[in-house]
This record gives sequence, C-alpha cells and structure tokens, in this order.
Amino acid sequence: MFESAEIGHALAKTEYRKIEPKLRADLLEAQFALSKDGRFPVVILISGVRGAGKGETVNLLNEWMDPRFIHTHAFDNPSDEEAERPPMWRYWRVLPPRGRIGMLFGSWYTAPIIDRVFKRTGASDLAQSIEEIRGFERMLTDEGALLLKFWFHLGKSQQRKRLKALESDPKTRWRVTGRDWDFFKHYDRFYQISESTLRATSTGYAPWTVIEGGDPQYRSVMAGRTLLAALRGQLAQKAAEKPKAPSREAEVRAPDKLHILSKLDLEVRIDKEKYDTELAKWQGELARLTRHPGFAQRNVVLVFEGMDAAGKGGAIRRVTAALDARLYHTIPIAAPTDEERAQPYLWRFWRHVPRKGRFTIYDRSWYGRVLVERIEGFCGEADWRRAYAEINEFEAQLTRSGAIVAKFWLQISKDEQYRRFKERERIRFKQFKITPEDWRNRSRWDAYQTAAADMVERTSTADSPWVLVESNDKHWARVKIVKTLCRQIKARLG
Amino acid sequence: MFESAEIGHALAKTEYRKIEPKLRADLLEAQFALSKDGRFPVVILISGVRGAGKGETVNLLNEWMDPRFIHTHAFDNPSDEEAERPPMWRYWRVLPPRGRIGMLFGSWYTAPIIDRVFKRTGASDLAQSIEEIRGFERMLTDEGALLLKFWFHLGKSQQRKRLKALESDPKTRWRVTGRDWDFFKHYDRFYQISESTLRATSTGYAPWTVIEGGDPQYRSVMAGRTLLAALRGQLAQKAAEKPKAPSREAEVRAPDKLHILSKLDLEVRIDKEKYDTELAKWQGELARLTRHPGFAQRNVVLVFEGMDAAGKGGAIRRVTAALDARLYHTIPIAAPTDEERAQPYLWRFWRHVPRKGRFTIYDRSWYGRVLVERIEGFCGEADWRRAYAEINEFEAQLTRSGAIVAKFWLQISKDEQYRRFKERERIRFKQFKITPEDWRNRSRWDAYQTAAADMVERTSTADSPWVLVESNDKHWARVKIVKTLCRQIKARLG
Repeated sequence: MFESAEIGHALAKTEYRKIEPKLRADLLEAQFALSKDGRFPVVILISGVRGAGKGETVNLLNEWMDPRFIHTHAFDNPSDEEAERPPMWRYWRVLPPRGRIGMLFGSWYTAPIIDRVFKRTGASDLAQSIEEIRGFERMLTDEGALLLKFWFHLGKSQQRKRLKALESDPKTRWRVTGRDWDFFKHYDRFYQISESTLRATSTGYAPWTVIEGGDPQYRSVMAGRTLLAALRGQLAQKAAEKPKAPSREAEVRAPDKLHILSKLDLEVRIDKEKYDTELAKWQGELARLTRHPGFAQRNVVLVFEGMDAAGKGGAIRRVTAALDARLYHTIPIAAPTDEERAQPYLWRFWRHVPRKGRFTIYDRSWYGRVLVERIEGFCGEADWRRAYAEINEFEAQLTRSGAIVAKFWLQISKDEQYRRFKERERIRFKQFKITPEDWRNRSRWDAYQTAAADMVERTSTADSPWVLVESNDKHWARVKIVKTLCRQIKARLG
Repeated sequence: MFESAEIGHALAKTEYRKIEPKLRADLLEAQFALSKDGRFPVVILISGVRGAGKGETVNLLNEWMDPRFIHTHAFDNPSDEEAERPPMWRYWRVLPPRGRIGMLFGSWYTAPIIDRVFKRTGASDLAQSIEEIRGFERMLTDEGALLLKFWFHLGKSQQRKRLKALESDPKTRWRVTGRDWDFFKHYDRFYQISESTLRATSTGYAPWTVIEGGDPQYRSVMAGRTLLAALRGQLAQKAAEKPKAPSREAEVRAPDKLHILSKLDLEVRIDKEKYDTELAKWQGELARLTRHPGFAQRNVVLVFEGMDAAGKGGAIRRVTAALDARLYHTIPIAAPTDEERAQPYLWRFWRHVPRKGRFTIYDRSWYGRVLVERIEGFCGEADWRRAYAEINEFEAQLTRSGAIVAKFWLQISKDEQYRRFKERERIRFKQFKITPEDWRNRSRWDAYQTAAADMVERTSTADSPWVLVESNDKHWARVKIVKTLCRQIKARLG
C-alpha cells in the first residue's frame, strides 16, 4: 500500500496558494453543517511514520477549521486509570459526540503495530488485534460515525533525510528524539508490519488513506481534500436519509413454544431456615474472596437482567451486602442522558467499567439493545442483530483484560409476575416499583421471552456464560446467584 | 467537640433489634422520595479515627438503603490524572447528581488534617484550607445539596483496645496495618487538630455530627437517624418551596453612564502590515514558551468573554494557531447538558480543567452566571451575587495548583456590533453566526455592559486579572491578546 506514496508527490507553493483558501472555506462550511445538524461524529486517526508530517497536519486542520468543535487527543503511555481497564477504554472515553470532530493522534493501531515490531507480541496476537479493530470500526460506522484513517508515509531514505533536517535546525531540533532513531533502525520491519496491518483493516466502511508525507503542500491538500470529500459525502447521505420509523418486530413464535427459558424448573424452592444459613455462608465466602491477594488484579462486572419484578434489585442487595461499599458501584440503567445519546450505544456502559479490584454491578445493561430496544422498535432490526457480535466482543475485551464477567438472567413465570405486580400495587411501600409501563411490557410477555432466549443463545460464551436463575422463589434465586458468583470468582482467582 | 463522644454510649442489642426494622424502612422510603423527585443531591462525608466504625457504617447504610442510588467513593492516594489538577478536582468529579446519594469515604478534610498532624504543613496552611472548605461547602449547600458530615470518634484507650481486638481476631487482623499504629502514636495531636478543624467548619449550613464509635448498635442508630432526619427535613423543605419565578434584574444605570468598559478607547487600530508581523512575532513567542521546560508543570486556563460578535472565535483561532493541537482543548459553552444541569453550576467547568502542560480554552465560561444568567433571570439574584466569590475561589484554586488563568473581555461599541451583525446576515458564509437571540441580547446592551463592568470589578484578582481588549479593530484585539498571554505565561514561568 505504500508504493504509491514513495514517488515524490509534490505541489508547488504557488499552486498551493491558489488551492488553499477555497479548500479551507469549504472545510469550514462542511464543519458548520456538521455541528449544526449534529447527525454524526467524525473520528480522524492520524498515523504513520515519524517525520512524515502527522503533527503538522493535525495543527493545520485545527487551523483551517473551527477548533472549538474539534477535540484532538494524543495518546502516549496510558495513565494509571487507563492501565487498569481494557486497552480500548481510553479510546472510548474520548470518542467525539455527534456533530463534533475527534482527531486521534495515536490510536488503537499504535500498540499492536509497535509491540509486533519490537517482538513483544507474536503474529497471532497481531491477528487478534486486527480482528478486534475490524469489529470496533465496523460498530463505530454502523452507529453512524464517519471514520477517516490517515497514514502519513515516507520512504526510508526520505525519512532519514527528514530526521536529519529537523535535527540540524535549532528551531526543530527538540522534535527529534533518540526514540525516533531507534524506530528508524527498524524501518523495514515497521514498513512490513504496518503495511500488512493496513491492508487487513482497509475496509469498505473504514478505508485507509495513505499520504506521502515529504512535501507539506501536497500532504496538506491531500488530507484536506480527503476529509472534505468524506464530510460532504456523509452529510449528503444523512440529509437524504429519512429517520427510520420505529418498527416493532413481528413476533416469531416457535410452533411448540419451547425455548431454553421455558425449560427451566421454576418450582425449585428453598426453606427459610436453609436460606438463612446458605446465604450467610456464601456471602461470607464472597467477602473472603474479595480479600484474596489475587483479587486486587481482577475487576468484576456483574450483569442483572430479567423480567419485570423478577427480583433483580433484591438479588443485587444480597450481593452488595457481602461487599465493602468502597469496592463497588451499582449502575441502574434507565433512559440514556443526552450526552449518552450522542454516542454509540455501548459508550454508556464503557464509561462505568471498573478499575482493578472493583465491582461494577449493572442493573439492566447493554442487553437492553436486544431486549427492550428490539421489542419496542427503539432501534432498527439491523442494529439489534449486529449487537450480539458487538456485545460478545465487548465482553471478550473485558475478560481478556482480566475482568470477571458474570451475567444473571432472572426468570419468573407469568403467574408469579402477576402476583408480584398486584402485591406491589397493594403495599404502599412498594408502589413506587410498579408503573403502567410494567403492565404494557407484560402484555408482550412472549416477545420478551423469545428475545431473551435468543440473547442467551447468542451471547452465552465460555468466558462469560449466562446464569439462568429460577426466580419464582426469591430465596432460592438469591442463594444461587451469590453461590454462582463465588464459584466464578474462585475459578478465575485460581 | 469530642467530649460527649467519650462517655461510653451504648445501645442494647434487644433495643437495636426493635429500632432497626423501622429505621431501615423509613430510610428506604426517604431515599425513594429523593430519587423520584431528583430535587437535590446528598453528599455524606464519612470521617473520624481508625477503628471507629467508618467502614462498617458505610456498608450498613448501603445495606439499609437501595445501593443502586448510592455511590460510595473511597479516596486514597490521587491517581496521576488527579494529581495533575487542583486538589478539589477529584471531589468535583464524583459529586452525585440530584436525586442520588454520594458517600465519600475520605474527603477534602483528610489531607489538610493529616498533613498538619505530621507537620508537613503549617498552621496558616490549615487555616487556608479551612477557609476554602467553608467556601466550597457553602457553595454546595447554596446549590441545593444536602451535606452531612459524620465524624466517628473513639477515646484514646478505646481506640487502643479496638485496634488490639481487631488484631487478635484472625478474621479481622488484615484490617489493622502499621499505618494505623503509626497514626495512633499521634493520637493527641490528631485529636487536637481535628477538633479545632471540626469546630471551625461546623457551620449552620453544614454542621458536623460527632458519633461515638465504640458500640456498633449505638453508632448505627445515631448515623441512621441523623441521615433520616436530614433527608426528611430537606425533602419537606423542597416540597414546600415554590419554583422561583425567573426574575429579570431591574437595570440599574449609573447616573453618568460611566463604567470601566465605557472608558476604553475603542478607536485604537493597527495597520495590516504591522498586524501581520506583530501577530507572527507573538505567535512564535507563544509557541516557544510552550516548549519551555517549565511549561510541563503548568496548566493554562483561558477564558474568552465579550459582547456578541466581538470576535472571540477569531481571537481563539489566532491563539490556537500557535499551539500544537495536542496541547489544547477548546470548550464552547452553550446550554448545559442534562448531566450538567444535575450538578452545581461550576461542575461543567471543573470537568474540563486541563492536566499539566495543557491548555483549556473556554469560549464563554463560568462568567455566564453573572452575565447572561443574571440578565435573563436564569438564576436568582442571590445565586449570581454569591457567584463572584465562588468564581474567585475557583480561580484561586487553579492558580494555587500551578495553573495560569488568563481572562479576556472583548469590548466593541454598539455601532460596531450593528455593523457586524448586518455583515453576518449579508454573507452566506457567516449566516450561521447570527440568530434572533443575538438581536434580543443586543436590545439589552446596557444591562450587559453593567453586568460586565460589575464582573470585571469583582473578579479581577492579582493572580487572574481581567484583560480588557478594545476590539473594534479585530487585528488590534488579536495582537493584544496573544501578546498579553505570552507575557502572563512568561511571568509565571519565571
């Protein structure tokens, strides 16, 4: 991919002076259209070899456009808050909201390529990173983002010349470090690994643009024009798009109405006395496990889903009762805030990913996408269908970074739900828990069951399996949850 | 303040068992009322001596109430992202939004007291911290927060006994560290310093509650009841409060219409040629200053305020053109997001405070409180009147932590504004910049001028003075801004 970026592209200064004012004005205008409509975010990756004009381009684009609506982020070594979470967390936290441009100097490509160049990782690690990146970029663009990936390239002798030139000028000498020459020594390997990485990640939805970096005029105009064309294209496309009418899914019922949830034996019970001793026993075990020396290196992500009134809140409280309150955050998922709505749907969950040694407990979760959003038509069919893979990838990133992900589905029977709804309506103290929406959801019971069964089938993985909890008896459910959690943590602590 | 917490308070277990269920239910109910209405946030500080039951109380309150609406934060050593910002940043970032409870284990009292105990700071440092804390807590409660401050106390012999007891039980031995005994050695000094700090910060709006920590039943009931009474009190008070009708301030004009802004000579001009060389010169100087070795220890906060069409955007772009795009973020301040609206008004500015070596450029700022919010009645008179002191304190915290705060007021004449508005309407490219709101604001020109003059008078401090920029000539304004900024940075770099 780099051959055509070693042919000595150049643009005369006089030419440049003719092109620049118009390009600049056009870019500014496109940017205003973007920030006014706020239909989609723009993510620009700035990558390439040292000395090829990455920094200059970032500065130039900030100068050409309105810097108030551009956020530039440079990634160096992760801060300690970043290092204790999955590697992608630092990128998620700076994603631009709709209407804004995020320019990322250094990106999710940096570590995989450099680690491979210096042989800190093997070929299969790189292959896996590429797989992850493709999934992530696919998700970003599916969520409506415009993703532009620039690679600024220099041929080997060009790079040597460039570094020497920078070094010999007292005004730019500070820019060349020992690290630059260190990288230069590995030029060939760097060339080969980045080229194959670029090729594997140059997709229809997020192609790479390789720009020869030797001539500033050429480089700037190329970058500017590429950005302009992409911006205009996406603006025109979004303007033509009609807002999708929310379409409820037609309920598809298995002819025999059987699915994994209907096979659960909801009659299982535990008597009160046994409940008290068992719960105390497993809560004690859970408390002990969190004091295990290895626990400080584990973050724990708990997910609670289930039918309304299935007892999620009560179960969560039995878990947290065993924990030091300094160790966990519980995140009840309701309607997204407007900052959350301006981001890809997983963003609001990423932001709460715990540091090492901590729990985040999600009371409802990202699975809303394939449950309520699917059933109520809050997102399109294509959106919830792709969500299964995105969710699996999200959880895989968590577990790969050392997290323990435990997911509980609390299942009750339709009759039991009715009983609990009625009880809630009767008892003053519980009235806040029952709303007309609960009754509405109940009327779509079968659709929810089908969606939940699909969800379990598609997102129960070896590392983060769904735990199906028979919950007609709350006591039985709580013991099962705390006990299973203990076992999962113990297995991972080794 | 501690005497009455050394008298051996205790509550029999049988008594406790009678009190607890009701207390618990009442607390839960009050919490539901809080989260349902979402009228105010609750901040609970948990402090006191080691072994006095702080952790147990935090856990208990989480168990009694719904943990999904409580966020507990434990503060240990600052993370590197926290260490590079003013000390209060880490507390601002975890303030609970309206309707939620934030339990802070460790707080803004911890460092001032401990540093003084171990003589890392002098008496005047502590006095200054106390002053700051009083201001901060006053602001929090003025913004509607319910602030509860618990101090769990043990007498000296009680504490020794307690630590020994914890140590002798294998199940709790891990909880006693060398640091605990180290602190115990300084018991008397700790006692004396915390008592005087508590006395100085036990205010009407945020009194301390000192609780004897020896007996778990007594301690728990006291903490629970105190919280319940405070919650109920504030809920009742807020329910009785009518939403304040937005009241526009009556314009008060000085009889001679003279104020600090009307004294500016708006006729100053610079010719185009001189502008080009001067601007280039100062931009070069600014670029050099950011590469000064000392700059890595400085964060820079820039504030741009001014009449509509005064040229803020253009001036900001002349500043950023001299900067590496990786070093700055520009934050255009528009209507707050819903997450921001659920917090004290300064929260949305605190969240963007830069790390060391970085710039944050605010295009409009916290001064909106004493400008547009004052004039349009978006906040009450008491609110904007107290804002001057709150703002001064905010900026003082920034400068004390090493930041450079530069504030620019761009002043144009009423005629010049009219000319620019008309130009904006005429030129297609600039039309996005002019809205009916601009014309509305213009109709209140005098009110804005009065408010701006008041603002300059009350918030121009030695460390962060207002720079008044005569802006009828944009070129003159831009050169003055970049030049002044250079001088301010240079002065601080030494």
